[in-house]
This record gives sequence, structure tokens and C-alpha cells, in this order.
Amino acid sequence: MVCACPVLAQCLGAQAPTLVEQDSRSGLVLVKNPHLDLMEEDVLYHLDLGTKTHNLPAMFGDIKLSPDTAIFDFQFVCVGGSPNRMRAFAQFMQRELGLAGAGEDVADICAGSDRYAMYRAGPVLSISHGMGIPSISIMLHELIKLLHHAKCRDVTIIRIGTSGGLGIEAGSVVITDTAVDSSFQPRFEQVVLDDVVVRSTELDKDLAEELLACSRDIPDFPTLIGHTMCTYDFYEGQGRLDGALCSFSNEKKLEYLRRAYDAGVRNIEMESTAFAALCGLCGLKAAVVCVALLDRLEGDQIRASHEVLWEYQQRPQRLIAAFIRKRLGLFPTD
Amino acid sequence: MVCACPVLAQCLGAQAPTLVEQDSRSGLVLVKNPHLDLMEEDVLYHLDLGTKTHNLPAMFGDIKLSPDTAIFDFQFVCVGGSPNRMRAFAQFMQRELGLAGAGEDVADICAGSDRYAMYRAGPVLSISHGMGIPSISIMLHELIKLLHHAKCRDVTIIRIGTSGGLGIEAGSVVITDTAVDSSFQPRFEQVVLDDVVVRSTELDKDLAEELLACSRDIPDFPTLIGHTMCTYDFYEGQGRLDGALCSFSNEKKLEYLRRAYDAGVRNIEMESTAFAALCGLCGLKAAVVCVALLDRLEGDQIRASHEVLWEYQQRPQRLIAAFIRKRLGLFPTD
Repeated sequence: MVCACPVLAQCLGAQAPTLVEQDSRSGLVLVKNPHLDLMEEDVLYHLDLGTKTHNLPAMFGDIKLSPDTAIFDFQFVCVGGSPNRMRAFAQFMQRELGLAGAGEDVADICAGSDRYAMYRAGPVLSISHGMGIPSISIMLHELIKLLHHAKCRDVTIIRIGTSGGLGIEAGSVVITDTAVDSSFQPRFEQVVLDDVVVRSTELDKDLAEELLACSRDIPDFPTLIGHTMCTYDFYEGQGRLDGALCSFSNEKKLEYLRRAYDAGVRNIEMESTAFAALCGLCGLKAAVVCVALLDRLEGDQIRASHEVLWEYQQRPQRLIAAFIRKRLGLFPTD
Repeated sequence: MVCACPVLAQCLGAQAPTLVEQDSRSGLVLVKNPHLDLMEEDVLYHLDLGTKTHNLPAMFGDIKLSPDTAIFDFQFVCVGGSPNRMRAFAQFMQRELGLAGAGEDVADICAGSDRYAMYRAGPVLSISHGMGIPSISIMLHELIKLLHHAKCRDVTIIRIGTSGGLGIEAGSVVITDTAVDSSFQPRFEQVVLDDVVVRSTELDKDLAEELLACSRDIPDFPTLIGHTMCTYDFYEGQGRLDGALCSFSNEKKLEYLRRAYDAGVRNIEMESTAFAALCGLCGLKAAVVCVALLDRLEGDQIRASHEVLWEYQQRPQRLIAAFIRKRLGLFPTD
């Protein structure tokens, strides 16, 4: 699918293919904003970081995996809704990569703000994004500028989240091939001033296949590839019968969810279309890997115990750890 | 303005005026969902509360302001984006109302979840909602069901937030008369299954005037009434030149913001239309009171120091404290 995004075309003009190609070769993160070069300082307000207050290349640039190993460029960014989960993921990756400090607490790089939390485990950055498209969009704009200012190269970005499954067993992990909107279309509508711009929600197909291949080494939970539907609302927008407002019947709900299933949707969450659109436009190889906390064809409420839900949430983390270890040429630890 | 919401009409059918009238007399919170009565248990997942696991009427029903004063029904719910700010507000209200435990830490009622934080200070509940419409919508659905299950009456709900000002001095406090979308229209478009339903964003005019009257006793910062524009995006959607993507010129930006100003918009944030729509449909008297962190006609970046921003953020809190004290018949403390 070719992105025919008018904003991108307008921003890059006739030079678009050349510029994209160049940046694709350099591996640098693309910011598509001519105004940024004119700014003396860039305050990344919601991350509580900035180009004058922090040495971003030193903080986020070349990474030593351990004192006696080679220098890696910073390579993996993992994002997810919950700050606690993203802290746990950073600690998990410290152990998985055998990093110094494993088992100890990790420091929140964005401690001066409570909007997002950010942790680093060697070549892995782990960041929370809150819930919903507006929340993840703010974080991604500032993260992408951060990676640009820090001159990071060849960044792979993965959203590891929770979702409602569709016709799949609770606890299944879905690797998204295409993020679709509530009409099952692979598009993200972005308001720019008061115009609506339609953007592609294409994700990296090779990365999705690579992740699926990694999942074959983890036989104790099912992993599959499918479409992920992204909505602006958890209750009415996802056809739940248990919100403060509900105007539709169980039959109407099931008819809608079955249409989604027939269109290839295997899980539903609230960030993937914006994530795919923004990362795609900025040259980041992106994937979405979410565990299903329930099967929405069987119910609406998330009733599993804290322990079961915690174990479910570790499944995308385990898959991503296997993928990162493989990419870094490390032996499997389990 | 009469709300011609098709969902509400469909949900309540011909009985709508009678039911609304009855609930308006009883002061109870309206949930407009016939399915809820059929549920044995209601798990408020993102708040980590539930009807079987918690005694919600005991936790949130009648409130004693202090051991030797009268019993108040639970009356005030204040919501805001940042969990730290909402904890600080609960502590501030403890002091302002002279409650037992003032000066001590407050417990997070939703400690089992890191999606939202909730604190209580006597008759005031203080809850964080994260950033953006999807995030506040999830919280409001679960909060409204909570208030319903707890049989709370005569609830006044106020969003105390931060915003970008429009043609007003940084630090000004804006009381919203009407929440408008990015086209300056007083409407909220809610996707229900795959239909779009348009809802009214009317707020309580008397409450806004009452708040403005309270502000006259606080002369050390300007307070005004105006329209508040609500967007789905902080960067492109609000005409910022400093995002990772920007396809428009400074002139186009200013032309858009000036049109917003001419339409009566005095500040811009990311939650008010959904807040007004949901609260209005559920019979909650609602207000939005936000401080402007900058004047968007003068710039995009939030550059003020932490100290200045912290003081700005206390301004809506001080106004709401004065309002609550007045409602409770308490003497001013400053």
C-alpha cells in the first residue's frame, strides 16, 4: 500500500522520494517539520526533557550493552499504556540482557513529569503512553523529536499492549498486520488545523513476520497475526453493554463484532492506527503486539484475577524479549 | 439548547422526559443503560473497584465532614489530567475544609490500578483522567457507574485542568461556557458501534456564573468565561509548529487561531467536549475550569519554569476551594 498522505506530500514536496531514500539509508529518524530547525531550544514538555536542559545525544545515543562488549546504537523502543507495566518491562529486559544493575530498581527518565514514564535497559527504551490516541500521539511527537535530537539510528519501535480479543482465546497474543479504524478501514484521520487528513496505517510486514517466527519458540501461549481495530472509546465505541450509556442490544453488538471478525479483526484496542501512522511517516519500523484479556464475542467485562491478568501482560514482553535477544545475537535464556 | 441526541432518545424512548424529571428531582446520577440492571456484578476495571469486591455505598455515599458536624451527601467530584496534581488537590482540600488528617498523605483509592488515581477529602472526590478524550471517557463511564452504584445525590463535577490560552495572559483561568470542537461547533461526535452520534456539549450555565462570582474574591489572577476548544491532538490539531510533523506555515496557524478567537474561544484543551457530553447525558451538573499555561497567539512551547507552572496549576484549585467552601457554608480561609 502506497501512502498518499497529502501532509507528507505537502511537507516534502517534489523531493519526497529522494529524502526518504536518503534517510532510509542513514537509518536516522525523520522529523517532517521545517520549523524545528529554526528553534533555538526544543522543550519536550510532557517528557520533561529538552535540548538545552539535557544532553540528549549523550543520554539516548550510542549505548554500551555492558562495559566489555561492543557499542550498540540505541535500537529498540517499546511503548505501552501502563507506567507500572513499562517499568516492569525495563526490569525484565535488564535481566534478559544480563545488564549491570539487573534486579535493582530502574530510574524514571521523565520523573519530573507524571504524564509519561520512561525507563532504559541498555539498548531498550521502555515508555508509557497512557490510554487512547490523543495520549499516545503527544508521547510519540515528543519521542520522535527526542530520537531525532539524539541522532538515534535504525530504531525499531514496538507497542506492547493489552486488548480485547475477537474470536480468539483469552491470553492469546496478536501481532498486528494492519491497524484499522471502527469501520475496518486501514486509515487514520488526523485533524490538521481544521482540515481532516487521511493517513496510512501500514506497519512493517517483515517485522511482523520476524516476531511471529520468534513466537514459535514460546509454545506456552498462542500467537497469531491479524488486523487490530483501534477505537476512540472503550465502551460505546467497542460495542460494550456495560458502560454508563448503552443504546444498543446484545444482538446489534454481536452483529458488529462479527462483521469486524469477518473483516479480519482479531483484537481491539485504542492506539494502533495513530501509532502506525506517526511511526510510518517518521521512518520508524513499527509493530504492535497485544495480548487479548478476554474474547469480546463472549463478554465485555474483564473478570480475570490480577494474577492471571499480570501473567497475560507478560506474554508480549516475553515475545519481545526473545526478539531483541535474537536481534542482538544473544542466546535464549529460556 | 435542547439536546436532540438520538442515542438518548433511543435509550429512553417515549419515557425520556418523565425519567429525566424524576431523576432530576431525586438528584441521583443517571445511567442510561438497561443492561446494567441485568448484571450480577459490575467490575469497574480501570478503577480497580467493583460492586462485589467493594461496598461502594459505604465508601462513596454519605460523608461526615468531621466527627462533630452534620452528615453531607457526597457532593463534589473534581477531575484533572495529572495524578500528582489531583493528589495535591485532595491534600489542599483537606486543609481548606479543616478535615482530620490534613497535612498527612492521602490514600489512592484506585491503588490497584495505575490507569487513574482517586483521592477523597471529605465531601470532595479528586480523580485523575489522563490526557485526551478516550482517556477521560473511560474514567467517566466508570465514575458515573460508581456514583450510581453508591447512590450519590446532587453531584457537582468540575474538571480542573491546564490549557493553552487564546489572546489571554498566561496564568489566566478560563471558566468554560461552551465546549466546542476543532471547527468551533458545540458538539461531540461519539462513535457508537460504527455509527456517529452527535451530542450536545452544553455545560451548566448557573454553575459557571457561580464560579465566576467566587473568582471575584480572588483578585490576584484574572478569571474569565469563554468558549473552550477541545482537540484530539496537541500538535497538528492545535496548530503547533513544534511537533514531529508540521505541514503548515506560521501564517496559516495564526489565521486558524484568530478564527477560533473570533468564534469566542479563549482556551484549548483535549477533554472538555466529551466531559460535557457524558456528564450532561447522565444528569451531572458540570463545569470546566482551566488555567492557561501560555498564550498560543504568542507561541507554542511551554517554557515557564516548574515553579511558575505549579503556581498556575494551583489557581483553578484555589477557585474551586473557594466555591466548595461557600457551598458548604464555611468561612473563607484566605
